[in-house]
Amino acid sequence: MASVAVDVMSGDCGAPECVPGALRALAADPTLELILVGKPEVIELALANASAEARARLRIHPAASVVGMSEHPREAIRRRKDSSMRLAIDLVREGRAHAMVSAGNTGALTAMAHFVLKTVGPVERAPIMSVVPARNGAHTHMLDLGANSKATALQLAQFATMGSIVARDVFGIANPRIGLLNIGEEETKGHELVQEAHELIRASGVNYLGFVEGNNIFDGSIDVVVTDGFTGNVALKAMEGLAKLIVEQLRTEFSRDSMSKLSGLLARPVLRRVGEGLDPRRYNGACMVGLTGVVVKSHGSADRVAFAQAITTAATAMRRGLPAAIANALANAVTTDNAAVVNK
Amino acid sequence: MASVAVDVMSGDCGAPECVPGALRALAADPTLELILVGKPEVIELALANASAEARARLRIHPAASVVGMSEHPREAIRRRKDSSMRLAIDLVREGRAHAMVSAGNTGALTAMAHFVLKTVGPVERAPIMSVVPARNGAHTHMLDLGANSKATALQLAQFATMGSIVARDVFGIANPRIGLLNIGEEETKGHELVQEAHELIRASGVNYLGFVEGNNIFDGSIDVVVTDGFTGNVALKAMEGLAKLIVEQLRTEFSRDSMSKLSGLLARPVLRRVGEGLDPRRYNGACMVGLTGVVVKSHGSADRVAFAQAITTAATAMRRGLPAAIANALANAVTTDNAAVVNK
Repeated sequence: MASVAVDVMSGDCGAPECVPGALRALAADPTLELILVGKPEVIELALANASAEARARLRIHPAASVVGMSEHPREAIRRRKDSSMRLAIDLVREGRAHAMVSAGNTGALTAMAHFVLKTVGPVERAPIMSVVPARNGAHTHMLDLGANSKATALQLAQFATMGSIVARDVFGIANPRIGLLNIGEEETKGHELVQEAHELIRASGVNYLGFVEGNNIFDGSIDVVVTDGFTGNVALKAMEGLAKLIVEQLRTEFSRDSMSKLSGLLARPVLRRVGEGLDPRRYNGACMVGLTGVVVKSHGSADRVAFAQAITTAATAMRRGLPAAIANALANAVTTDNAAVVNK
Repeated sequence: MASVAVDVMSGDCGAPECVPGALRALAADPTLELILVGKPEVIELALANASAEARARLRIHPAASVVGMSEHPREAIRRRKDSSMRLAIDLVREGRAHAMVSAGNTGALTAMAHFVLKTVGPVERAPIMSVVPARNGAHTHMLDLGANSKATALQLAQFATMGSIVARDVFGIANPRIGLLNIGEEETKGHELVQEAHELIRASGVNYLGFVEGNNIFDGSIDVVVTDGFTGNVALKAMEGLAKLIVEQLRTEFSRDSMSKLSGLLARPVLRRVGEGLDPRRYNGACMVGLTGVVVKSHGSADRVAFAQAITTAATAMRRGLPAAIANALANAVTTDNAAVVNK
């Protein structure tokens, strides 16, 4: 049975949240098998209360070091060959695992995953793709959320093609509507780079609806929003910050006086339903798309619930054969005239 | 008495919302005087029910055309000399008004305002600056929100200096904390341009706290967030989209069944307080900072309440002498060694 290699040492919390997250994922999925990568003594400590059944479906793969959250990607590749992040990626390259998950330094994970696993076919850069909530219970897929701080027009066009493939083949959206993020929907808006990407995507054969704006991410008008990793990451974190602020404001106002407290008590089931629909932990687990193996990036500040979700996402992508699906779809795409424009 | 010139023809709604917005601003501020710029017959129609007192404090300045929402900035400068947007800017240049407001095409407004009013001293580009809600009732100022789709490192450093001046001299923040938006707080993150801007801002003498991330916009840790107009605009619109989605979800869940409806009724005062604190209409009216006159951009989809707020913001900036304050502060800044780095 295929295993997921889990870097349990990285992220803001490290093993104290990642190991319980792994146990949570095992408990939720009776056929899942995990390889926990990190310092054995630290992992054993966090596994103290694990059930025998869970322990039977996990192995520990020792790693002597951890990539720091502020370590430079190039340095991490050069010096962290014994890190939990690197060894988890190595397990995928060696075929001993078919997917890996890490909550570590995005830059280092991106660089290492590119370096070790390489991109599929004509893919220049592997973007990070994830899902955000949208109107009427819908979801919007978005890429790049921060793997690459810059993207050329050609790379943006490749993101559009890959996003379309993943949305269709992995998430079952028949004819995904693709939009390119810009600062206006009008054709004349934005700088030269988005204008050039606009023309490339238009010629690429995806179901391209044109430019979209930040607010369209949530309005259900689009299935896949394409942007560079700088803009995507800022937008994603701004959303998270705003959602957190709104939750705080609700909490403050609902405890202002006894009448507010009472109304808060009565409104709790409703607020819980709204909160669950928007909970970023439900959406944790972003796919690094376009590599030869499944690599899932967990949010750095993920707790055990969120980290378990990232592991589940990795297992799903692995079982659905994401790398092969992308490789096949891109291999087919490059034989068409339309894709030739994108891959020129 | 100084007047505000108001382009009442632009934006998604045009005169049917802009003229009532102007009347609302007049009613709220007994010393305000306005010049409504647009098609006289359209304005007269919208003024049908205006009080004699309000009419006594407004004049109509005829303009034959309107800049379209998708018109190219260069074309707008060349062909729209008789537009409501252009003539309102001209009134400021001629000293017949001391501020102008428009809900029109941001690109055209930016280009026209630069072309007609010019920037102050060493300012290369005038960014758009506005305020978003933050934790504990605080606010965060943010620039550029979309005036310029690109910014060089020097321009970002100038944004930091101008943002600091406006926050201090206009909004009374003693020693504004400045942050540069990036995709990580660590010094090694982000592309070359933000790295270069980081060094320039560090040397510029503002109270610079370093890199901040999207979530920091809302957490009250920073007074002024600096970024380029592309990223700033996407982040702003993403926030608006998410806020709208959350309001919709609350509305849906509070009307799901009779118990939810009852709890919604009781929770209404609390939800109203939260909503008012976050209402984007309260924050409508972004300043184009660094020009020789006060130019305030209203959101394109502003209704009359939001448009009135933009007029009030323009009147405040005008009365506080914003252009002179920036010119003086920048003139002083350029005599210091620190600023020489920024303005090299």
